[in-house]
Amino acid sequence: MPGGLLTDLYELNMAASYLRRDMDGLATFSLYVRGLPPQRGFLVAAGLESCLDFLASFSFTDDELATLEGMGFDDHALTDLAALRFDGEVWAMPEGTIVYSEEPLLEVTAPVAVAQIIETYLLNQITLHTTLASKAARYVLAADGHDLVDFAFRRTHGTEAAMAIARASAMVGFVATSNVEAARRFDLTAAGTMAHAFIEAFPSEREAFEAFAMDHPDRATFLVDTYDTEQGVRTAIATIEALGLRERIGVRLDSGDLDSLARVARTLLDAAGLPQARVFASGGLDEHEVAALIGGGAPIDAFGIGTQMGVSADAPFVDSVYKLTEFDGRPTLKLSSGKASLPGRKQVWRTIGDGEHRDTLGLRDEAGPPETRPVLEPVMRDGRPLAPPPSIRDALRTFQGELARVPAAARRLEHPEQVEVARSTALLELTAETRAAALAKAEIG
Amino acid sequence: MPGGLLTDLYELNMAASYLRRDMDGLATFSLYVRGLPPQRGFLVAAGLESCLDFLASFSFTDDELATLEGMGFDDHALTDLAALRFDGEVWAMPEGTIVYSEEPLLEVTAPVAVAQIIETYLLNQITLHTTLASKAARYVLAADGHDLVDFAFRRTHGTEAAMAIARASAMVGFVATSNVEAARRFDLTAAGTMAHAFIEAFPSEREAFEAFAMDHPDRATFLVDTYDTEQGVRTAIATIEALGLRERIGVRLDSGDLDSLARVARTLLDAAGLPQARVFASGGLDEHEVAALIGGGAPIDAFGIGTQMGVSADAPFVDSVYKLTEFDGRPTLKLSSGKASLPGRKQVWRTIGDGEHRDTLGLRDEAGPPETRPVLEPVMRDGRPLAPPPSIRDALRTFQGELARVPAAARRLEHPEQVEVARSTALLELTAETRAAALAKAEIG
Repeated sequence: MPGGLLTDLYELNMAASYLRRDMDGLATFSLYVRGLPPQRGFLVAAGLESCLDFLASFSFTDDELATLEGMGFDDHALTDLAALRFDGEVWAMPEGTIVYSEEPLLEVTAPVAVAQIIETYLLNQITLHTTLASKAARYVLAADGHDLVDFAFRRTHGTEAAMAIARASAMVGFVATSNVEAARRFDLTAAGTMAHAFIEAFPSEREAFEAFAMDHPDRATFLVDTYDTEQGVRTAIATIEALGLRERIGVRLDSGDLDSLARVARTLLDAAGLPQARVFASGGLDEHEVAALIGGGAPIDAFGIGTQMGVSADAPFVDSVYKLTEFDGRPTLKLSSGKASLPGRKQVWRTIGDGEHRDTLGLRDEAGPPETRPVLEPVMRDGRPLAPPPSIRDALRTFQGELARVPAAARRLEHPEQVEVARSTALLELTAETRAAALAKAEIG
Repeated sequence: MPGGLLTDLYELNMAASYLRRDMDGLATFSLYVRGLPPQRGFLVAAGLESCLDFLASFSFTDDELATLEGMGFDDHALTDLAALRFDGEVWAMPEGTIVYSEEPLLEVTAPVAVAQIIETYLLNQITLHTTLASKAARYVLAADGHDLVDFAFRRTHGTEAAMAIARASAMVGFVATSNVEAARRFDLTAAGTMAHAFIEAFPSEREAFEAFAMDHPDRATFLVDTYDTEQGVRTAIATIEALGLRERIGVRLDSGDLDSLARVARTLLDAAGLPQARVFASGGLDEHEVAALIGGGAPIDAFGIGTQMGVSADAPFVDSVYKLTEFDGRPTLKLSSGKASLPGRKQVWRTIGDGEHRDTLGLRDEAGPPETRPVLEPVMRDGRPLAPPPSIRDALRTFQGELARVPAAARRLEHPEQVEVARSTALLELTAETRAAALAKAEIG
């Protein structure tokens, strides 16, 4: 994995200044989301694994240093950057953890130069994965236990994002993905049958169905809407009967009024003595449409979910930031209008038990309120991971354990309410003191 | 570059069936956008270069074939897939070309199996790059000649998307990017100065500014809003004067009321005899805000544009599709409700001259209306590119030549109107004939 140039130029400018001036004080940066999108009552933390991989191998290749020379970095800076590694500490929420506004997903403590350079990559990856996992979680809520399959590859923002949504959706409970490379990489179940083009390439729909089922008897879900959906279902039934298929059979609806077509399909399949045949629906569905179909009783067994999830269409980003909260033993903050930050190394204290989450944002070194547990854990020290990364299955367990505890008003799909996160007395006191010091700094200019 | 597994499972299912049955007829697939997002009056074609790179090296590695064996593909299928290469023909719009609804950005003609497998990757890449280039173009319209810099890296959907927006924004006229790796890869100008953390890491804003300017006298743009913006501008001026800086100086505003703060900054800078100092603005700006600032006369010289562009926040995808339009010498289409397609190998005939575009969607082999030119060009034959890829500069020239000819109603930022694309008589006739044949196919089931 490359490293050093996956950043914004200003990070390198700042790092060069710090290094030249021997400013090697430890900096703590806190990565959090500054106000959730209005369509989100909670987020699902994700992206940590790629951050830790990046940090563990962070360095500049000779080619990268030559590039920087061409951009005006002098010998002093290049020598300093060449020696740079990430040797710091990371605390983070495990992937799959529920996160609310202002709660750190990750905190880095390292010498300020390297802690600064990694900002861009960490923000990029946490934002990507968290945005997508949070969107996928909404489909899980909508589907109410029905199977969900990731179909997003073709319209995600690149192949990296396609891998991310396959992983993120598995992490919240999707049962399969259409993305073959993602299935290989993350050991997921690959799913898929046929497209309209296949039907069109044969002289008739019937011949296409038969050919497909003969070649792939274990995945005989027939796409029935190429010409006429009801006729397509009848053709699928005829094919199933002709070939004597009994298991792993079904029909896929990809257009039109899915509710009524699903009922038609179900009725025809049942009348043919095929209650085990599944009805699969796809076609640009957002989570509200899935919820409406399920809520309305449409007999759909599984959904293929694509673009709307793959780009998190209703909220394609979160307002993630990476803010300096401590430098060289001093707490820090910025006062910028509407974008002020809170000082100090933090911890999220979450209530234990089965009730709805009540969180307190506090300091890492305080005791925490009674009946709470710390949500952020140390995951890297001296630049080395403290444990192998949790599996996607581990993350799914984390997510499932927490989802039920998200306050109902924050969990609903329409107009979710933001969860109020309390601030500990220790944090409030530190903020007041640090603010006063910053105002004094501003006055001395 | 890997290849074969960057696809959806169903593509491989279909390909395996085609290959097993020796169905090696040539298929033509047309990649186009089925109705623009309501916020878009036009799109900017992009992503072709990565598609051609992918096609030129398309194959399956032994590891990839082993993965497919694990997913249930039998020896026959694996042998067939192992031998597969892309040896077809591609016609496409050059990157930077303006494109309207239903106009093919790209058409592939190749044996059906390989033409099918590549669908997912081609759609993914054309969708990514075209979505981002089209969004970036709106900032160019909004900025009305003022400098624009890409600041999007930290919140794009992954690093691949970050490279894509750096490239796409350069293609429509952005002058620089903050993304160091993209600057290296695409030979762009890298830009950037400092973040708030840098100011906070020093005992005072003044000391931070002086340190930075001493270390980087060629990029002395001071971020002035960490504590108090007006005071920050005064501190920047004092630093500029103390160090005797004359060129490449400026201030950056990143929060608050940018219009009034820019006026304050401009007044202070001018009063200090620094008319050459530039005022730079950033902070989550969408294109409407840029247009309002410029339209209102805010004295802002340049804008840093981040998240809103980097995820195309108001329209994060386009409804791109890849449809079979001809197979084995026969035109094809699908009739699916609301998603019908048009048959045949196509061409976009665009009026020549300086007037607004009037396009006709027709067939590749027809003569085209008078006073028009064909927009799609052959770019690959027998799986080999016909020419080296155009440079980003070439694409920018293409874009600039065409932007002025986008109908004014389609070019406006608010409620743009869709451009009506005519259909040629030959296309209409072919559609009617093919539709009749498809209906007949549907009836025979």
